[in-house]
Amino acid sequence: MTKTGNEDSIRVAVSAVTLTLRRESEEESPHIVLPLVRRTREPHLGDWALPGGWLDAQEGLEEAASRTLAETTGLAPSYLEQLYAFGAVDRSPTRTISVVYWALLPSDAVDRQIAAYRAAGHAPENVQWFEVADLPPLAFDHAQIIHYALWRLRNKVGYSRVAHGFLPPEFTLAELRDAYEAILQRRLDPANFRRQVEASGTLIPTDRFRTGSHRPARLYRYNTDVELADRGPLAPEETRTP
Amino acid sequence: MTKTGNEDSIRVAVSAVTLTLRRESEEESPHIVLPLVRRTREPHLGDWALPGGWLDAQEGLEEAASRTLAETTGLAPSYLEQLYAFGAVDRSPTRTISVVYWALLPSDAVDRQIAAYRAAGHAPENVQWFEVADLPPLAFDHAQIIHYALWRLRNKVGYSRVAHGFLPPEFTLAELRDAYEAILQRRLDPANFRRQVEASGTLIPTDRFRTGSHRPARLYRYNTDVELADRGPLAPEETRTP
Repeated sequence: MTKTGNEDSIRVAVSAVTLTLRRESEEESPHIVLPLVRRTREPHLGDWALPGGWLDAQEGLEEAASRTLAETTGLAPSYLEQLYAFGAVDRSPTRTISVVYWALLPSDAVDRQIAAYRAAGHAPENVQWFEVADLPPLAFDHAQIIHYALWRLRNKVGYSRVAHGFLPPEFTLAELRDAYEAILQRRLDPANFRRQVEASGTLIPTDRFRTGSHRPARLYRYNTDVELADRGPLAPEETRTP
Repeated sequence: MTKTGNEDSIRVAVSAVTLTLRRESEEESPHIVLPLVRRTREPHLGDWALPGGWLDAQEGLEEAASRTLAETTGLAPSYLEQLYAFGAVDRSPTRTISVVYWALLPSDAVDRQIAAYRAAGHAPENVQWFEVADLPPLAFDHAQIIHYALWRLRNKVGYSRVAHGFLPPEFTLAELRDAYEAILQRRLDPANFRRQVEASGTLIPTDRFRTGSHRPARLYRYNTDVELADRGPLAPEETRTP
């Protein structure tokens, strides 16, 4: 590979799309929400953008995405998956390749991480959570990036247990159905859903129940013997850059 | 995003993994092969590497992958799909992010493209095709990249008609089974395979037959009404960078 000199003006950034479920009240269905950061400088001053920043020469891509996400929002997902590298020539005034990572987070984990972040004295005033169906004006091509992440999520839900990412380790069938409904943007028949999930062999019933204002509901957990096809052979290498 | 200065030493390259099926004789099963380019300079002088090169500031990522692939091998796939951005800190002596694209090519298209390339006076002496099961020493992390591409291919074959990429527009069920067997690296029962494929609704029988040394076999084509979930909302934007 010969350098022509023309590639020196290209810079590499990372961004993260971190999605979680949020419900306004116990009666309402949950919606998918994500954190955005208000830009405090040009270009796109005042617009909202995905959490991210420049890649440092001494850090791996996923490491940079984790670092910039934690710095801006206080979030620390257990892992980030690479979504796509966006590199259209006109996506930014200066030529920028953005390697975008994404993660699904259970809402209780989000609440705990943000509480810890605030307890440590951070006041992230430029961060706000938005429903993906009701986004503000976004900087760069970040609306397209979020659109693509949601498309991937809808596609993945059919062939992997991606909805798991939104749930705590133990969950009710109603909570799992809520996650599927939020992802697919449509209602699912509760009886059909129960039958399909039980037939899939991916859930293990526990002997514990969720109690509350409704009638007690059995808690399930995922059958970890069923192999995840999400990370594959990259998992060891890409998450352990020196 | 504030520049720290430390990101200026990062460069962006593109590479392409182009896979096709090749059989030694009509009796043998086909194998997956790909073209590699022998490096004529350090680092990794003399090792084999994926076709690729530096991203130019004025071109899109896929455009750069297409250009460098055509320059080195004469191949011109109808489209390249983004595979992954590889960015481990130690993958190259100088910090390099490689955005890797991949494509499956029907072998007759490969033969036509290479013949045209040679007819135009090109003699690609540093290019050679290798069986993926029998690779030479590879430069950088290119062995890992090919390993990842093959893993993705095996995973995709279950939920999309990715094997289509290896076939001409019309093909026999035996040719389709050959493609699946090459991808999955195992034998499939011909009768079961026929039943499953016919039940899937993804194939349309034509009234044409492949004749030759064997008994005539019906030709099929893919049902293009069944939507491909491979490219999604990125197709229009990413393939049309200005």
